[in-house]
Amino acid sequence: MLTSELLKLLPAVCFVWQIAMIVLFGVFIRYNPESDAHWVEHMRTENISSDIENDFYYRYPSFQDVHVMIFVGFGFLMTFLKRYSFGGVGFNFLIASFGLQWALLMQGWFHFLDHSTGKIYIGVENLINADFCCAGSLIAYGALLGKVSPVQLMVVTLFGVTLFAVEEYIILHLLHCRDAGGSMVIHAFGGYYGLAISWVLYRPNLHLSKRLNGSVYHSDVFAMIGTLFLWMFWPSFNSAITDHGDGQHRAAINTYLALASTVLTTVAISSMSQKKGKLDMVHIQNATLAGGVAMGTAAEFMISPYGSLIVGFCTGIISTFGYLFPFLENKLKLQDTCGVHNLHAVPGMLGGFIGAIVAAAASEEVYSREGLIDVFDFEGKHANRTVGTQGGYQAAGTCVAIAFGLVGGAIVGFILKFPIWGDPADDNCYDDEVYWEVPEDEETIPPVLEYNNHMIHKHQDM
Amino acid sequence: MLTSELLKLLPAVCFVWQIAMIVLFGVFIRYNPESDAHWVEHMRTENISSDIENDFYYRYPSFQDVHVMIFVGFGFLMTFLKRYSFGGVGFNFLIASFGLQWALLMQGWFHFLDHSTGKIYIGVENLINADFCCAGSLIAYGALLGKVSPVQLMVVTLFGVTLFAVEEYIILHLLHCRDAGGSMVIHAFGGYYGLAISWVLYRPNLHLSKRLNGSVYHSDVFAMIGTLFLWMFWPSFNSAITDHGDGQHRAAINTYLALASTVLTTVAISSMSQKKGKLDMVHIQNATLAGGVAMGTAAEFMISPYGSLIVGFCTGIISTFGYLFPFLENKLKLQDTCGVHNLHAVPGMLGGFIGAIVAAAASEEVYSREGLIDVFDFEGKHANRTVGTQGGYQAAGTCVAIAFGLVGGAIVGFILKFPIWGDPADDNCYDDEVYWEVPEDEETIPPVLEYNNHMIHKHQDM
Amino acid sequence: MLTSELLKLLPAVCFVWQIAMIVLFGVFIRYNPESDAHWVEHMRTENISSDIENDFYYRYPSFQDVHVMIFVGFGFLMTFLKRYSFGGVGFNFLIASFGLQWALLMQGWFHFLDHSTGKIYIGVENLINADFCCAGSLIAYGALLGKVSPVQLMVVTLFGVTLFAVEEYIILHLLHCRDAGGSMVIHAFGGYYGLAISWVLYRPNLHLSKRLNGSVYHSDVFAMIGTLFLWMFWPSFNSAITDHGDGQHRAAINTYLALASTVLTTVAISSMSQKKGKLDMVHIQNATLAGGVAMGTAAEFMISPYGSLIVGFCTGIISTFGYLFPFLENKLKLQDTCGVHNLHAVPGMLGGFIGAIVAAAASEEVYSREGLIDVFDFEGKHANRTVGTQGGYQAAGTCVAIAFGLVGGAIVGFILKFPIWGDPADDNCYDDEVYWEVPEDEETIPPVLEYNNHMIHKHQDM
Repeated sequence: MLTSELLKLLPAVCFVWQIAMIVLFGVFIRYNPESDAHWVEHMRTENISSDIENDFYYRYPSFQDVHVMIFVGFGFLMTFLKRYSFGGVGFNFLIASFGLQWALLMQGWFHFLDHSTGKIYIGVENLINADFCCAGSLIAYGALLGKVSPVQLMVVTLFGVTLFAVEEYIILHLLHCRDAGGSMVIHAFGGYYGLAISWVLYRPNLHLSKRLNGSVYHSDVFAMIGTLFLWMFWPSFNSAITDHGDGQHRAAINTYLALASTVLTTVAISSMSQKKGKLDMVHIQNATLAGGVAMGTAAEFMISPYGSLIVGFCTGIISTFGYLFPFLENKLKLQDTCGVHNLHAVPGMLGGFIGAIVAAAASEEVYSREGLIDVFDFEGKHANRTVGTQGGYQAAGTCVAIAFGLVGGAIVGFILKFPIWGDPADDNCYDDEVYWEVPEDEETIPPVLEYNNHMIHKHQDM
Repeated sequence: MLTSELLKLLPAVCFVWQIAMIVLFGVFIRYNPESDAHWVEHMRTENISSDIENDFYYRYPSFQDVHVMIFVGFGFLMTFLKRYSFGGVGFNFLIASFGLQWALLMQGWFHFLDHSTGKIYIGVENLINADFCCAGSLIAYGALLGKVSPVQLMVVTLFGVTLFAVEEYIILHLLHCRDAGGSMVIHAFGGYYGLAISWVLYRPNLHLSKRLNGSVYHSDVFAMIGTLFLWMFWPSFNSAITDHGDGQHRAAINTYLALASTVLTTVAISSMSQKKGKLDMVHIQNATLAGGVAMGTAAEFMISPYGSLIVGFCTGIISTFGYLFPFLENKLKLQDTCGVHNLHAVPGMLGGFIGAIVAAAASEEVYSREGLIDVFDFEGKHANRTVGTQGGYQAAGTCVAIAFGLVGGAIVGFILKFPIWGDPADDNCYDDEVYWEVPEDEETIPPVLEYNNHMIHKHQDM
Repeated sequence: MLTSELLKLLPAVCFVWQIAMIVLFGVFIRYNPESDAHWVEHMRTENISSDIENDFYYRYPSFQDVHVMIFVGFGFLMTFLKRYSFGGVGFNFLIASFGLQWALLMQGWFHFLDHSTGKIYIGVENLINADFCCAGSLIAYGALLGKVSPVQLMVVTLFGVTLFAVEEYIILHLLHCRDAGGSMVIHAFGGYYGLAISWVLYRPNLHLSKRLNGSVYHSDVFAMIGTLFLWMFWPSFNSAITDHGDGQHRAAINTYLALASTVLTTVAISSMSQKKGKLDMVHIQNATLAGGVAMGTAAEFMISPYGSLIVGFCTGIISTFGYLFPFLENKLKLQDTCGVHNLHAVPGMLGGFIGAIVAAAASEEVYSREGLIDVFDFEGKHANRTVGTQGGYQAAGTCVAIAFGLVGGAIVGFILKFPIWGDPADDNCYDDEVYWEVPEDEETIPPVLEYNNHMIHKHQDM
């Protein structure tokens, strides 16, 4: 499958797509008033009293936490394979770097285009949204890890970001759903997108690479770096683009609590399931994060602290069971390297429905009249929407996200089946050797004397 | 000691305690006005001019830094053992996740309970305090690393958080001490708590596990991740809950300086102590942090920049000497895996006394009248307290923290001696195999052809 | 070259220099009004309405990101060698800890000295600047990695910080250049400083250590931690000390975009250059960062989003080509361990000239009148400077930085040639054994029974 000619696709794709980005940015992307040198004028005309009111100071710390999740969190979580750590962290780096540029354009066209000037004006909130948009494709990568080429991943990201922008437009604008942390638009979509691709790309002879589909001691420790940075910064993820003030504050608290609860039930189920009560690193690395996924929609609502704990409690159990009984792999012939189904798809879908229920249960008593309007954006043409209706739309939004993931993924999967992408052979999956210059093994560091003698002999032989 | 039945304790403890948390949160924990949807109303009634005045924006960046210290800092610092990295980072993850929930309740009951409603109203400052409260138990874990079961650690945390909340109430409220970075309430308490437990749990035959009580090259590099994240974010730790404005600003500067100074004296003593002047990773990983511990009380005071450097200078020396001459181990029959005595107990105690001295030396000239009142909270019934008296109380507070650690630790130690907790045998300490599914070794990755032949033969044999 | 006597230099240097720091801090360094307990008074006299206006809240999150770059970013980037990870991260830790103290003094004397009181008043911006100042010397360390002793590194840092403060004074104050992210003052200076030192210290027999001048699988993954934290936090680096409001906002956006673009061209060139299209970890770890270096001057200007992408595009190509064709090594007999020339020196120089061009192209239309004055500080005696003149000065500043690096580095190199510094022998370079107690190898963990039998025999033999 893999010829040297095909491998030249990667430089071509990187160059051409990057040049396309430059041209499109040149035509469309400009600074918004908060990042433009006209800011001082803008402050005066808008009667803004202080530089600290610039959105930068509300959101930049959260942005940087999200940025760490995208590059170190997702990247290192995928270093757990014994000989695919370069690919895990390296390809994640590549596709996120492309994806965020394409996301600024796609999301810009759908959400931020100023129709009077034809420009997209960007600020820190756009950067956060672009990182979020990449997350969908990085989640999909989790299902494909080790089985696809970097060019295929670029294609996955190109379509993933595009589909994301469309479903996000439908869910957030047309259906007027709330989904600040993206249970629906990021996790349910991204998870099912990756699973559908993986289902189409099913490899019946993947067992030929079985020797490499596992971890070694230190690769599991590397993966814990990813797990922990995702886990710690998830409160920032779910609160990064919520309303200023109580919105960000509450979303952070709810996510913090849900994640703590998830850890305990994950450990419980993991220990119960193994003979001798031993814990399994796969569960600790992944299922502990399910609470954050499931709070992606409801975190900004008044779900209450104990409500957050309950969500974490249940999703920790469900996610760990998913890892214990991988029915997709067994029944559906679907190979899901990182268990994206258990970590993103199912908890994301649950998060969407939890959001629907919590929205439907909202009341003026709990939120205050103004609070209700703020949290659910009941303004303009949605001023008269009831919380019950809102709940219905939230549930519908979840279904839209899943549908986009499944259908979009199936189509992209078929595109990726063409034998032009340079994917690895069945006995070469999960192997960095295929796409990376891999250094010699650790054991081969010779002591100085031996080595120099060896070099002398070598020179004499020459 | 270790039967499969005992190991079922862990799931039971996780489930039951997590359910208890949910019930207690349901009864007691609510959002505070800054994280509640009534915030807009609250702004109006309290005449707050802007969302940016929400405490979230003052403290959330520091909170996230502290959060990283708790989970990555403490977690990776304890990965240094060659075959206990899973347990180091994994059990740290588990007990901190439980501890922070229990801490929100315990600290809530003692400090934040609204007696009119019977509720605890939480915001970002409570999250920081909960993380701090966990730190006490995580420090204790450092003394026990590799010698106890996860269930024992849960018990250590349950009692550790409880004792913490009580001693904190006595020190901060009854004695009206200042201890923003917790030299006393976190480090001295946590250190002596862990040491007392370890003393009771003394294992005379621990030498049977000696082969595993050490590092390998890459586990030492992993531990440096922990060291550096602790070291870098310590300014946030000591400033996270100090007064808005100059209080947070000054605490960060003082801690930054003290830590820089500690590194140089740690390197100096480490190099002096070894033949050939070689440096010891144990010192670099641990003693470099002592300056942050010792500034936990005084960081918010006007100790002056050079005062901070002096504190760091001295504690670097003292801590490194502690690692060089582990007299506890030799004289007291006390096994302290991570050298908690040198890193937390002694520097924490010193920090408490340094705080007492700096407080007693405070003057209106240096602080201004208002500054003095602000920094030491000389208001209400403490309005007439002199700085000299304050110094005395600070010293008394340090003693209270140590006493709580020693007595509480001794009691908890005896509880943990019951043979029901599934602790590892003397020749199985420091070994992840006991509690974790450990992957095959790195060396066993066979080349593809050999492996497939091998699999063919295996199938033929079957 | 290496006697045990020489090794005693390290403790002596650490002690004496740290004591000197304490004395000098005692004489010169005080808190500034924003970190002093007089802040409440200061707020009243300056008519500051809220604590949130304290510079701490504008800059502390960026400061912590920069701090992570200095200690984890630079530190882990230098762990890529198979047996010099301790030295990479450990000596980086040591010299940055010294350097930031010395930088507070040197930069204080040149920029922040209050001539009426003879004191330097510090706040969070000084901490950021001190970290920046260290970066110059840490970059130089990259060229010397594995070939010098820790005492030599302390000397490199002492002179590096001193030279930095002087060139910074000339460039920023006398020439009135803008260089917020330090393309000129940090990267061009630091890069050429390290290269000049390395050139003077040329070792013709370095091939004797060739066996250790390379990575192993896991050391490359460790280095990716450094790469990613540098990459992710570079927007904070370039925006940390720019103007409040739009200045910080725009610098972050521009850097974010440039870095994304760099990743794609780095991957493209790396893949094109290798047979079979494989990627080289050296490129991914280093050249992906060149876009951040090259935006160090222009990031705060209105370079426009597509301009940032173009900068990243070009520097990714140039930097990767630098790694592919190390003409310095081949032609100039200059050993540059980390490829500092390709990552810092050249992109820094380019960044300086890009800044000059963008400054010269500035217009009132794009910036607004006020914006132009704000961004370029056209106030006081520079009120009448034109953008064209500013561009000329920016270019001149770049040349000054390079000249300081080359001349200063040559002089320091000659100082380091004296045979008194304990540098490693030619066949002992890149080897932690020389300066560190290195633990036994991973492979030697014996199974429990064998080990205990072995110990029994050992005891019987005794």
